[in-house]
Amino acid sequence: TATRTQGFGPSAFSETTRLALEHGAVNLGQGFPDEPPPAFVLEAARRAAESGPQQYAPAPGLPALRQALSVWMAPQLGYAADPELEVTVASGATEAAYAAVLALVEPGDEVIVLEPSYDMYAPQIELAGGQVRYVPLEAQGGRWVLDIERLRAAVGPRTRGLVLNTPHNPTGKVFSPQELESIAAVVQDCDLWVLADEVYDRLTYAVPHRSIAALPGMRERTVTLGSAGKTFAVTGWRIGWAVAPHSVTTALRGVRQWTSFAAPSPLQAAVAECMTHPQASAFLEEQRRSYARRRDLLVAALRGAGLDPLMPEGGYFVMAAASKLGADDAEIAARLIRDPGVAAMHGSMFYAPDSRAGLKPTLRFAFCKRDETLEAAAQRLRQLG
Amino acid sequence: TATRTQGFGPSAFSETTRLALEHGAVNLGQGFPDEPPPAFVLEAARRAAESGPQQYAPAPGLPALRQALSVWMAPQLGYAADPELEVTVASGATEAAYAAVLALVEPGDEVIVLEPSYDMYAPQIELAGGQVRYVPLEAQGGRWVLDIERLRAAVGPRTRGLVLNTPHNPTGKVFSPQELESIAAVVQDCDLWVLADEVYDRLTYAVPHRSIAALPGMRERTVTLGSAGKTFAVTGWRIGWAVAPHSVTTALRGVRQWTSFAAPSPLQAAVAECMTHPQASAFLEEQRRSYARRRDLLVAALRGAGLDPLMPEGGYFVMAAASKLGADDAEIAARLIRDPGVAAMHGSMFYAPDSRAGLKPTLRFAFCKRDETLEAAAQRLRQLG
Ligand SMILES: CSCCC(=O)C(=O)O
Ligand SMILES: CSCCC(=O)C(=O)O
Repeated sequence: TATRTQGFGPSAFSETTRLALEHGAVNLGQGFPDEPPPAFVLEAARRAAESGPQQYAPAPGLPALRQALSVWMAPQLGYAADPELEVTVASGATEAAYAAVLALVEPGDEVIVLEPSYDMYAPQIELAGGQVRYVPLEAQGGRWVLDIERLRAAVGPRTRGLVLNTPHNPTGKVFSPQELESIAAVVQDCDLWVLADEVYDRLTYAVPHRSIAALPGMRERTVTLGSAGKTFAVTGWRIGWAVAPHSVTTALRGVRQWTSFAAPSPLQAAVAECMTHPQASAFLEEQRRSYARRRDLLVAALRGAGLDPLMPEGGYFVMAAASKLGADDAEIAARLIRDPGVAAMHGSMFYAPDSRAGLKPTLRFAFCKRDETLEAAAQRLRQLG
Repeated sequence: TATRTQGFGPSAFSETTRLALEHGAVNLGQGFPDEPPPAFVLEAARRAAESGPQQYAPAPGLPALRQALSVWMAPQLGYAADPELEVTVASGATEAAYAAVLALVEPGDEVIVLEPSYDMYAPQIELAGGQVRYVPLEAQGGRWVLDIERLRAAVGPRTRGLVLNTPHNPTGKVFSPQELESIAAVVQDCDLWVLADEVYDRLTYAVPHRSIAALPGMRERTVTLGSAGKTFAVTGWRIGWAVAPHSVTTALRGVRQWTSFAAPSPLQAAVAECMTHPQASAFLEEQRRSYARRRDLLVAALRGAGLDPLMPEGGYFVMAAASKLGADDAEIAARLIRDPGVAAMHGSMFYAPDSRAGLKPTLRFAFCKRDETLEAAAQRLRQLG
């Protein structure tokens, strides 16, 4: 088998879910809701199954969904993306990100990724022949902080792009308007593109989410990714999207026709219905409120267990320092699944191997779970306290 | 944008469907049924929408579907593939093929593709850094013939694999047991792997389909691709699969976690239900019968129009020589969409640019369409006669 696949084990997220099931652990590992999606979402799926399209959608996406996405994204983007020229539906945001990376990254290009980071960007960039340059986010005074001068200093002659994930996985950081502006200044000064992974855009608990593409001069430099799975609590649907300038859209559509062709038609129709549904905004508001509550519940539980969580501003994960449980967070996470039976992701998996030396052990817990799940976890975690 | 995307236009299939709609043409271009899928298939989708899984499946596929696939594929493979180690579900056979190619093709490797061929293999191989070596299928005495000595002669020092598509798109050729045996001999003598694209395996009209993986010594060398879209007449569901030896499965799963992660859960559940449904085999039998009838209807219509179709043995396409309509089949196909209003794919799109010189003009027509559609096409085509 090809060299490129060496070192790619099975998905850490799928493995954690599998182990949680095997050991009867409360699963706060992989980020997916453990309660049914709202009725109007299931109803949209049912209608699509009964009378929606069952054959190939156009490779760039069902026109109805691209149209709905243009409207859906307009408030945060600050413009109505052209459904024909700027919006592409993909088989999940993962697939959208991969197509964008294949469209943007030339072999030898350098791309900046902030660290810790969701584990997908680096392998995607490397599959495209690019190299990742890491710039750290640092936990300071209860917040995750980006040193903008470090970002600027990391740009070298081969640097072409920046991955910006906000709300951020795993930290829960939501980049502020000021931070986005200073990042955009670096991006424009250095003539970079931005891959803006904003799949948690509807899940913020204090400051609202802002898209970097909304800033002056950024529309032409930014690919903005989104996810119906995260938005409507149906992570298994695999409907994501990329909003990108026309030239990048053309390139990513060109490559997608060979890597995956089209996303599932009935689920595209269902998402279009969800996005134009009268209940959508009330659902999102209610979801935000309930997730804020669950975040507080989980943070309190982690504190009760003697861990040191950093309060997330968005998304559905919380990172907690876990020094009191040992030095090696992979070992700690493996142990906790068995005893007391709580599954979390170990924090070091969100760092490159080269960045792991001297890292304090952390765990990432998901709070997109039912109250009972979080309470069961809290109870078990108390045994550590 | 990256050099790799240059020359990738929009999907020829999506474009043809779009133009057919625009010009009100009868669409025999892209291969998808234009009638509703069977009731038990829609019913499975409805049940999955109501009570199936809505969150991430394990990245390699829902266990229930992998188990169903092992049983489903056993008669033709001659073995029950291990659902844990050998079966992977993907977001369509396109995505399965791409993952297999990334898992198998090392930059610089040469891969043999028979020509004409479905247009996806070459770009996938090239995206993986491989080079395609074409070996022609030739139309002789009403059949498409592979000269096995030409195949053997095409194997060079860098040749690592062979793409074998049976039933074959676009020709409708079904490779016979004798042909498969001689191909397997070359493959084993030359230590090649085989990417066996068998998405039309349930659609044969004379000889039954045989999997090359069923031949002695081939299980360990073959990745067999299949498609629920083609099997159950739901091309928009994007559920495909790859059955491959353990080592290749590990490699392709490893890479898929970064390129697409997982296929849609509710549609995976629906396909598992379809495969274990008591009506499945009667449906497939009836579909085969009705497609055989439609094939005959279309072939007669093409003959009536003065074209020279070659009778397909499987799949749902027929290739017809079209010299009487002009010299350039791309131009002919573009013309026919407007007048008399029939969409077909031009045959030369299934050949590499370098192979097109001296090619006789051909058109590929799909017969996976309602009788009324085929009759409407026949009537319009008569204007050419
Ligand atoms: C694609 S599985 C991982 C889900 C997720 O976003 C996470 O847990 O970080
Ligand atoms: C993936 S769109 C093409 C469908 C098809 O298999 C064909 O028409 O050849």
